[in-house]
Amino acid sequence: MFFASDNTSAAAPAVMQAVLTANDGYAMGYGNDAIMAEVTRLVREAFEAPEAIVHLVSTGTAANSLALATLVQPWQTVLCHRHAHIADDECGAPEFFTNGAKLVLVDGAHGKMLPETLSAALKGVAQGVVHGVQRGALSITNVTEAGTVYTPAEVAALTAVAKAHGMPCHLDGARFANALVATGSTAAEMTWKAGIDVVSFGGTKNGCLGVEAVVIFDPAKDWEFQLRRKRAGHLPSKNRYLAAQMQGYLQDDLWLDLARHANDMGARLAKGLTQVDGLRQWHPVQANMMFPEWTAGTHARLKAAGAVYYPFPAPQGREAARLVTSWSTTADDVDRFLAAF
Amino acid sequence: MFFASDNTSAAAPAVMQAVLTANDGYAMGYGNDAIMAEVTRLVREAFEAPEAIVHLVSTGTAANSLALATLVQPWQTVLCHRHAHIADDECGAPEFFTNGAKLVLVDGAHGKMLPETLSAALKGVAQGVVHGVQRGALSITNVTEAGTVYTPAEVAALTAVAKAHGMPCHLDGARFANALVATGSTAAEMTWKAGIDVVSFGGTKNGCLGVEAVVIFDPAKDWEFQLRRKRAGHLPSKNRYLAAQMQGYLQDDLWLDLARHANDMGARLAKGLTQVDGLRQWHPVQANMMFPEWTAGTHARLKAAGAVYYPFPAPQGREAARLVTSWSTTADDVDRFLAAF
Amino acid sequence: MFFASDNTSAAAPAVMQAVLTANDGYAMGYGNDAIMAEVTRLVREAFEAPEAIVHLVSTGTAANSLALATLVQPWQTVLCHRHAHIADDECGAPEFFTNGAKLVLVDGAHGKMLPETLSAALKGVAQGVVHGVQRGALSITNVTEAGTVYTPAEVAALTAVAKAHGMPCHLDGARFANALVATGSTAAEMTWKAGIDVVSFGGTKNGCLGVEAVVIFDPAKDWEFQLRRKRAGHLPSKNRYLAAQMQGYLQDDLWLDLARHANDMGARLAKGLTQVDGLRQWHPVQANMMFPEWTAGTHARLKAAGAVYYPFPAPQGREAARLVTSWSTTADDVDRFLAAF
Amino acid sequence: MFFASDNTSAAAPAVMQAVLTANDGYAMGYGNDAIMAEVTRLVREAFEAPEAIVHLVSTGTAANSLALATLVQPWQTVLCHRHAHIADDECGAPEFFTNGAKLVLVDGAHGKMLPETLSAALKGVAQGVVHGVQRGALSITNVTEAGTVYTPAEVAALTAVAKAHGMPCHLDGARFANALVATGSTAAEMTWKAGIDVVSFGGTKNGCLGVEAVVIFDPAKDWEFQLRRKRAGHLPSKNRYLAAQMQGYLQDDLWLDLARHANDMGARLAKGLTQVDGLRQWHPVQANMMFPEWTAGTHARLKAAGAVYYPFPAPQGREAARLVTSWSTTADDVDRFLAAF
Repeated sequence: MFFASDNTSAAAPAVMQAVLTANDGYAMGYGNDAIMAEVTRLVREAFEAPEAIVHLVSTGTAANSLALATLVQPWQTVLCHRHAHIADDECGAPEFFTNGAKLVLVDGAHGKMLPETLSAALKGVAQGVVHGVQRGALSITNVTEAGTVYTPAEVAALTAVAKAHGMPCHLDGARFANALVATGSTAAEMTWKAGIDVVSFGGTKNGCLGVEAVVIFDPAKDWEFQLRRKRAGHLPSKNRYLAAQMQGYLQDDLWLDLARHANDMGARLAKGLTQVDGLRQWHPVQANMMFPEWTAGTHARLKAAGAVYYPFPAPQGREAARLVTSWSTTADDVDRFLAAF
Repeated sequence: MFFASDNTSAAAPAVMQAVLTANDGYAMGYGNDAIMAEVTRLVREAFEAPEAIVHLVSTGTAANSLALATLVQPWQTVLCHRHAHIADDECGAPEFFTNGAKLVLVDGAHGKMLPETLSAALKGVAQGVVHGVQRGALSITNVTEAGTVYTPAEVAALTAVAKAHGMPCHLDGARFANALVATGSTAAEMTWKAGIDVVSFGGTKNGCLGVEAVVIFDPAKDWEFQLRRKRAGHLPSKNRYLAAQMQGYLQDDLWLDLARHANDMGARLAKGLTQVDGLRQWHPVQANMMFPEWTAGTHARLKAAGAVYYPFPAPQGREAARLVTSWSTTADDVDRFLAAF
Repeated sequence: MFFASDNTSAAAPAVMQAVLTANDGYAMGYGNDAIMAEVTRLVREAFEAPEAIVHLVSTGTAANSLALATLVQPWQTVLCHRHAHIADDECGAPEFFTNGAKLVLVDGAHGKMLPETLSAALKGVAQGVVHGVQRGALSITNVTEAGTVYTPAEVAALTAVAKAHGMPCHLDGARFANALVATGSTAAEMTWKAGIDVVSFGGTKNGCLGVEAVVIFDPAKDWEFQLRRKRAGHLPSKNRYLAAQMQGYLQDDLWLDLARHANDMGARLAKGLTQVDGLRQWHPVQANMMFPEWTAGTHARLKAAGAVYYPFPAPQGREAARLVTSWSTTADDVDRFLAAF
Repeated sequence: MFFASDNTSAAAPAVMQAVLTANDGYAMGYGNDAIMAEVTRLVREAFEAPEAIVHLVSTGTAANSLALATLVQPWQTVLCHRHAHIADDECGAPEFFTNGAKLVLVDGAHGKMLPETLSAALKGVAQGVVHGVQRGALSITNVTEAGTVYTPAEVAALTAVAKAHGMPCHLDGARFANALVATGSTAAEMTWKAGIDVVSFGGTKNGCLGVEAVVIFDPAKDWEFQLRRKRAGHLPSKNRYLAAQMQGYLQDDLWLDLARHANDMGARLAKGLTQVDGLRQWHPVQANMMFPEWTAGTHARLKAAGAVYYPFPAPQGREAARLVTSWSTTADDVDRFLAAF
């Protein structure tokens, strides 16, 4: 009954098997291995983007920060939701990698920006006047930190605002597969067809050991990205072990199957929770993460039953939690958790 | 016959097995897993340093840069050998992580600084005068980039110069185990007993998939290091997969056995090369890396025989190469290579 | 009729005379001139702070950014009002000088933070958890960007919140003299007695050519500040010309006389504007800056009369402006401006 | 008898007069003043460069660092002489402004790089291989820190090497006027006609209070430079006082007259020193700075006579000094100094 985070799950068997298989003989370092070439092919195929640049790093923070640093100058902004991972959970990594660009926080219910709130935030961003930090890039997180999901149309509506202001667009897809499954859309529909220029395509939270692909649709950005990655210590010499994970992850649509399972478990959990007296969800449950608020005393009861998750601050006399399901959550886990109420 | 780099080797079976074993059930993220606690215990034991702080990162560049950034201010220097890895092979990572500290390059034959050359370089470094970049830290690489080795006494002689100038000392131990085996010294003798404050303790080149431990002997530096690591995208959520590698690596002195084998293969190769007409070594061969220079036409012959290694620029009419042996080099590899001459 | 900014005014005669007087013979560079020693004495006297460190720079942005960089680490925050000069008008200079610290914006009517809004903002700032940017410093602007003024008691109430969270406090005093005059308080009461650790003490807007003093009450910060200043190109070789300005400014309380005049002209202007039909002030007028909103068509009339000022965006069918008086504004300027309505 | 530095001299009367004249009435801030427009015209005329971008800053360090930051990326190099001002005397300002670019130091007698030493240094700089810091810009100092001078032909020979490697070129002209006078060349000949892309055109050391012009021949770099300048706190609100200095400096070729006088005094001093027994010059004396080495005991004698200058470390039993003449050095100063031997 482990609902703390999808990153507390192990690696999926097929992913681990790919790593094992890769552990054979010699391979050139720094991305010049044969598996990496195969990964590039697989990612391009998955994104229907035959020219896309693909690089692997070991953490989502690295993927996001390197992507953003390649898109914005130090005197520019990154517009993102007030509670985006890049704003709240990366200890200022975007500021570090960009050499001091400014995050402009956009409000929005349920973790989602709207075109109107984005436009309003943009009004406060300088352009062409030297005194203010200038327009930079837009960064959208999907699945959001609130567990909600943008449809491709919603992404496109946001990127349209950004593009109208000359800004490139980044997608933080730490839970990208979950977002695709939740919306029934393809990787292409969710990204370049919706105006996204660079994607952090997550593997870690969805069954890998630790790998994220940065997918860049404009090949002109490739070399700068590579130099920034090396300079940040994110070019692994034994790249094959990152590549193998991503290979196993993409093979036979495993990534989508794993995410589908995680989302299904999320739905099962959410459905069960509707039966709990006095429980309400802070946000619509659309993927594999939810934020229920319940009556006081529940934490103790669940903990006693062996449940693990992060409690959240709640209004007086209430309790709240973040619950995350993953590829390895079982229906039995969910049902036992529900039974503990 | 793969002598290109020790990072082209696979992971050692016991290391991979530890990763496999770790891939079971749930584990708290970001270093709060049980294996990491065990790794801390093992590293402290190996270094005879019961208070040492231990953190894992996935690349040597990250280990070095984070260590140095924790030791120096942006307006300070890092003194290192002219051809140190941090100077030549990390695309300016130390400058990035330190926010612009300056590397002061120290000359010295065979990749080694001497106390005198270090002292001479220090004369050019400002202290207490605002116009110049100030004294910062000393960084020593062992095994050096020339394949030579410092003894603990030689390390101590260098750190004594640094300490006399108030400078902390870093050891880049990407090939730390090879250096210990080559000198018959312990981890403690080579580090804190010889004046080293922070070590980059390498695993990747010696049989891991990709892991380096940063060992910090002064616990007061811990929190700053952790913030810098997170901010640089080097805190893995699924830390257990780094920890498992290091656990397998340290268990039963595997790390020393692997390095001993690599060094033995290096010695076997070097000995064989003494028989090659017209061949000379640029540097004394003391561990698992060598730089032979030989007669023109040899590259073609070796390549035809299936040997893989990096050629180096050589004087007119000559050829040169870097040859690296590893834990997975076999005596047969060496003998076939020698036979190809 | 120049109400665009106090920085469009010339230098006061006594300030210019001090510069002229300083232009005689040789003087050691980089702050080692005799006038600088006298300035340090004068500033310490004015602040009743015999140990205070005093350094001069040529712009307010430099003063603020160097002060903040000395107070916070790159992985920390600066809390300030949502519309502080450091947030809106310095093109990200604080982020540049601090190597990427994050500005956390605090809401508050009329340009002023309240202890409650500051406390609320602090709730969102991490401390001791590695994922978020950590607590850093508080920065208060007085006179605020809205033209309002904090009393020493109000400053103390804010710094008390900061100190309770272990945070040092900076005062952006680009219009420091105006704030003192407006509140009838002394420099000491407004700063160290109210919990301020470092002050940007402005001269430029109040009759100098271009000089700001950074006053640091903790001498332990001196050397780091000096290195940061030099490294940022803000240590002038011919420092005597900055020092002379500050000397002329402080002599015989000129700085307070100039500010008193500016504030008086502000009051005269504000009083006259109360007679204008359909005019309302956005903020209380407390010093030398105001933001009137008036009926459409007024801009054209005032411009025709020769008035110069910055128009501001206003609600439909209305117009708004920022009007600033200075040491050189005359009663006649004000009266002619009022007559133009 | 003040030979410590040309920056210990006062401002020339005509420069100070221009400042006084500028101190009249209101002027728009941040470079939008009428005097700045005139300065741009005058600089373009002096450089025969009708499209050149001209911006003023208050220190040479700022001019150099902003210029270099506009020319290189953080992962690139700046090649300069081992003892360039940017390498030795700016406390790492270039590293700060460029966010960590690396200075590659080029050897050369008498403070001068040669095309061969530059080419040799370039061999060690990576290009197109991700592991090393990449080619960036060349920076030449004229007058050099050794007091020697490059001719336009020598500058062109160096920039030709740089351009052949795709690198833009910067000239640190803190003593630009002295270099022009010494070589009998025009500003255009010494800069854009010789392959220079950006010039730090010094005023401070040659009779101004504190002003340097950055002259950028490629207008496409303008906006980035402006943003960097603002962000570094180097955009003065009362820009007119910088502009007035530069106006007075350029009017009627005052800048060249002042430099001619300084060089003449240098020649007079050098000639006189040839008569001193046991004295030798470290470098050819070509402008207004020299490094004589003389017999022990001389310092005491000169000091007793009232001479002020910087002593330098010298070989056993000898003494050395740096002597700098300026626009305000008189023949009488020189003669009394010589008489003191």
